Amino acid sequence: MSMNKVYVIGYGLTKFGELYNHGPSSLAAQALTEAIANSQIDKNQIQAAYFGSLVSSSNSQPSIGTACIRNCNLKIPITRIEAGNASGAAAFYQSYLGILSGVYDCTAVVGVEKLSDYVKSGIIERILGSTIDYQWEFEMGATLTSLYAILTKAHMKEFGTTLEQLSSVPVKNHKNGIHNPQAQFRREIPLENFLKAKRIADPIGRFDPATYCDGAAALILASSNYVKENSDILTQVPILGSSQASDSVALHHRDSLTTIASSVKAAKEAFSKAKLSPKDINFAEVHDSYPIGEILAIEDLGFFTKGEGGKATQEGLTELNAQISINPSGGLKSRGDPFGATGIAQIVEIIEQMKGITGKRQVSESNYGLTQNVLGTGVVSYVNIFGKDEVKK
Amino acid sequence: MSMNKVYVIGYGLTKFGELYNHGPSSLAAQALTEAIANSQIDKNQIQAAYFGSLVSSSNSQPSIGTACIRNCNLKIPITRIEAGNASGAAAFYQSYLGILSGVYDCTAVVGVEKLSDYVKSGIIERILGSTIDYQWEFEMGATLTSLYAILTKAHMKEFGTTLEQLSSVPVKNHKNGIHNPQAQFRREIPLENFLKAKRIADPIGRFDPATYCDGAAALILASSNYVKENSDILTQVPILGSSQASDSVALHHRDSLTTIASSVKAAKEAFSKAKLSPKDINFAEVHDSYPIGEILAIEDLGFFTKGEGGKATQEGLTELNAQISINPSGGLKSRGDPFGATGIAQIVEIIEQMKGITGKRQVSESNYGLTQNVLGTGVVSYVNIFGKDEVKK
Repeated sequence: MSMNKVYVIGYGLTKFGELYNHGPSSLAAQALTEAIANSQIDKNQIQAAYFGSLVSSSNSQPSIGTACIRNCNLKIPITRIEAGNASGAAAFYQSYLGILSGVYDCTAVVGVEKLSDYVKSGIIERILGSTIDYQWEFEMGATLTSLYAILTKAHMKEFGTTLEQLSSVPVKNHKNGIHNPQAQFRREIPLENFLKAKRIADPIGRFDPATYCDGAAALILASSNYVKENSDILTQVPILGSSQASDSVALHHRDSLTTIASSVKAAKEAFSKAKLSPKDINFAEVHDSYPIGEILAIEDLGFFTKGEGGKATQEGLTELNAQISINPSGGLKSRGDPFGATGIAQIVEIIEQMKGITGKRQVSESNYGLTQNVLGTGVVSYVNIFGKDEVKK
Repeated sequence: MSMNKVYVIGYGLTKFGELYNHGPSSLAAQALTEAIANSQIDKNQIQAAYFGSLVSSSNSQPSIGTACIRNCNLKIPITRIEAGNASGAAAFYQSYLGILSGVYDCTAVVGVEKLSDYVKSGIIERILGSTIDYQWEFEMGATLTSLYAILTKAHMKEFGTTLEQLSSVPVKNHKNGIHNPQAQFRREIPLENFLKAKRIADPIGRFDPATYCDGAAALILASSNYVKENSDILTQVPILGSSQASDSVALHHRDSLTTIASSVKAAKEAFSKAKLSPKDINFAEVHDSYPIGEILAIEDLGFFTKGEGGKATQEGLTELNAQISINPSGGLKSRGDPFGATGIAQIVEIIEQMKGITGKRQVSESNYGLTQNVLGTGVVSYVNIFGKDEVKK
């Protein structure tokens, strides 16, 4: 086992939303430029870049990653990493492995998505068909939303989770997102709006899912050697544990519908690497693309007993600076979900919280933060644990 | 620097060509199944998979990698790696880094492409637009072929390279490919056919480019620990050096048009890691998608002096078992070029040559083999050096 340690030393994030005035490569370049700037390193020390994106590819939107690197006046290999709507988290993970391998001392990760046009044209569900079992689910008429409806119903049936409990998730996340200037939706939405909304795939209501939007995020990673040799770096957030794990693609092949086994496994591995337990974590950014996603996450990650996630959320235990701050950024629900950027944006939030620069959404304790990103209904999960910024304040 | 060593322990390759009866996920599963079978390992020991493909993605051909893993009855994370027409080489490289990191002991790499339909529909040049500078080359009317024409002309002008010398490349490769049962075109093509062919982008003739076709290839990689603990593994080919390097995307930003700087750099790094020099290499699979590609490769990799590649080829120095056997498989020209599979198929050829199972195209000395794969006109190059199979014969 390699003895390298990997640090986040730079971070950048664009505004998320309907960004019709910006192309994907310029959004990506904007996030990467910001990350390079606040890392304060010479950009020519970056040796390789990883580009996370689901739809910014080949025939529709060619070579966005390459164009981003060129726009930043860099001449480094950029490798596109695609793992459906978890492409950002996957790109981060491969970048982390690149440094852990000892081959690279400094890498960049950038993720972008331009989804607003796809939402308007209605082909977004087809694109998301690539995140579920195409043959046995999508082609049989299932969509990501309808499969999440099944997961929601199973949890309601097995644990008595209520609509009120489920709706408490987006209510809380919108409350947090008000204070996030990069978030797409910065307004509170009252509980009753969620409850009385039209059902789009019962029990999922119209306002429950996160929105597919536009945006980019970027990080600069470095090895412990690099950080040692450049000790004046302003941001030095160590990655204490990082893991990916998987389960069957199709729901009908899973052992349980009330747990995301890939998240349980990834979390177990990440906690083991970090030598920490769930109770050590002060705050977490988790995959709340549907309300049940956050409920499953806070249970599967070990923050609450299985079946108690809905109750805990309704009781306010996951609110900002309660028992554990879940999605202080506003989560995917309030910030918006540009797939390739999302997993990276979660990490940017961890970094900014640890640096104490998040204003009114600042968590009071930020020693340990965690991110969890899910591909589709849980075929792959990514879990990362970060420690307190090692720069002396 | 990590002290891990990485081995290839399994290899699989489908027939390349117009495979209208096979879907991309079944082709990928076929190659991966073969690789698992000849590795003779328990497939459940594979911890992660890397999937190389340019067009087998999102909205057009969703989740091929995931479907391949499911078809092979595996439950492991699969990450799609896209690097244009070098996606196969890029997937191999990330898989190699995954083991080098110490996180994985056994990984799978699978690459696939189904291009025949795109060729018929005529949008292949648009897809390949993603491999060149989209804004400054493709949208200005340049195609990959027209840019290779510029590279060809520059070499002819600077070094007096002739059409006869250039055409000697495909003539030789078709001669080798006759003995490759997986190759798309298994027939000799006489020199005069290349010379008198219609020019499609002067000086590139109609029969000069490799064909975009269908096919899949797969490899199983393992750490030295894994190989030590499973010493009865039948294939143990060490990766002595592996590197990716890059240059500007657009030709007009390059320092020279008669050298692929990314190949020079990747080769230098790979030779340095392997502690070898070009004269140690017995045979190589290089990127001969256009004749000039192979000429540039054999010069940039250090096998021949810059400017002498055309002459050396015409004199037969790169024929099977001459000074150095270049493209004993038949190369991209005779085998066909399904992008995501190509870089992996090159490595399969190295393994099969080292195992001495390639029949009439067998190289007599196979101590050291090299592969070189190029993205677009050279924005990124991948170079890998392999040592003799460590299994006692």
